[in-house]
Amino acid sequence: MPTFKITLAYDGAGFVGWQRQASGTSIQGLLEDALRELDGRDVAVAGAGRTDAGVHALGQAAGFTLAREIEPEAVVRAMNARLPESVRVLAAALAPADFHARFGARAKTYRYRVWNDEVLSPFERDYVWHVPGTLDVESMAAAARLVEGRHDFSAFHAVGGATRTTERVVASSRIARVDARLIVFEISGSGFLRYMVRIITGTLVEIGRGRRSPEWLREVLASRDRAQAGPTAPAAGLFLVSVDYDADALAGGP
Amino acid sequence: MPTFKITLAYDGAGFVGWQRQASGTSIQGLLEDALRELDGRDVAVAGAGRTDAGVHALGQAAGFTLAREIEPEAVVRAMNARLPESVRVLAAALAPADFHARFGARAKTYRYRVWNDEVLSPFERDYVWHVPGTLDVESMAAAARLVEGRHDFSAFHAVGGATRTTERVVASSRIARVDARLIVFEISGSGFLRYMVRIITGTLVEIGRGRRSPEWLREVLASRDRAQAGPTAPAAGLFLVSVDYDADALAGGP
Repeated sequence: MPTFKITLAYDGAGFVGWQRQASGTSIQGLLEDALRELDGRDVAVAGAGRTDAGVHALGQAAGFTLAREIEPEAVVRAMNARLPESVRVLAAALAPADFHARFGARAKTYRYRVWNDEVLSPFERDYVWHVPGTLDVESMAAAARLVEGRHDFSAFHAVGGATRTTERVVASSRIARVDARLIVFEISGSGFLRYMVRIITGTLVEIGRGRRSPEWLREVLASRDRAQAGPTAPAAGLFLVSVDYDADALAGGP
Repeated sequence: MPTFKITLAYDGAGFVGWQRQASGTSIQGLLEDALRELDGRDVAVAGAGRTDAGVHALGQAAGFTLAREIEPEAVVRAMNARLPESVRVLAAALAPADFHARFGARAKTYRYRVWNDEVLSPFERDYVWHVPGTLDVESMAAAARLVEGRHDFSAFHAVGGATRTTERVVASSRIARVDARLIVFEISGSGFLRYMVRIITGTLVEIGRGRRSPEWLREVLASRDRAQAGPTAPAAGLFLVSVDYDADALAGGP
């Protein structure tokens, strides 16, 4: 009964998100369907981050246990042969029997891409938030740094989102202009609330437009009130970049 | 009756190509529909390159004449408001009344992208030809240079393709590895036969795979026989990058 950790990339456009839903195609559903074919029985797949509809992944992590003895390289090939081209398994490795992609994750990194030009490139339409007009990226960068550290992120949490605690630790939060048209926000932390990255991005864009000062973000954070923050940025611009684990969470094998 | 030259970008996936067809959506058809709405009458649009189904453009050029007096900036905005997000007008400029995007073009540059890695990125699936396995890019580069100059390109011409002459001048033909996974071929010339860039690419990949030597390309060229060349590379990897005009072809205005 080998347990595997896989790393995968997907284009989130057209999917209902990571998690199985009553209707529509989910990433989890596609993976479980592919593994049922491969293993001849139902296989449960746990993902590190439950990305929402339209959100992309460059390095999502997931775990599952198979009945069949099979090499990691064969898992990659067999899954990719059964998955649509919009979902690709990049790597597979043996993991300890108690590996859990979500509870075992030490840190996650998300990237949010803002297209800051009058005309949106047709090749970027599913992968950015289109924000034309002047954006003061220096102010946005100053504000972004204010979410670093341990905070109660209630103000940056989906309304109605359920969770044990709204406290999270953000290790790094940086935004910069990559070229004349593209601004990229990157944030790493131990965990994220639902919509947290997208609401922080929406708040940073309010500041970039000059409607608010960078210091406003500190007030929003302190308010613990979702109504105080900026809008939720669209799903299309968000990418789960990578998931990190402690070496001992991955060591061993069956 | 102002005449305009526009520059446009489009994601060719899902279109039947530049030219209007009996069925399916064409770029030309979309532009003419948008301009009919704008000008209140039928407007004929001539494109510089008649890209095939699935082929993309970063800098296609097109020309048309309107009845209505309107500023170039307003043409950009009005067209983009009426076009799908997969087609974007990047710029518009007044042009002489006799401007013709196709016959007036002095040079065109095409780019072909080859994804040379075991696993195809889900974000690249519509924008590359996926060629896993080792490719000898040095041999491909040596062969690519052999098409530079004036040649009869019959061997690199779609079977049944009709044209006045199969002689063309290639100013530059270069291929290089951009990173560990991506190989890019770029070719510029006064004009191209149908499928010419894709058949040259298919021939270069045969050489890259070690099935043929770079010198083989010289033989294929001399044969003037399509059957001697490599396969036609898929449309998805091809981009019309830019179209150049002599300054006097664009000077003036109405």
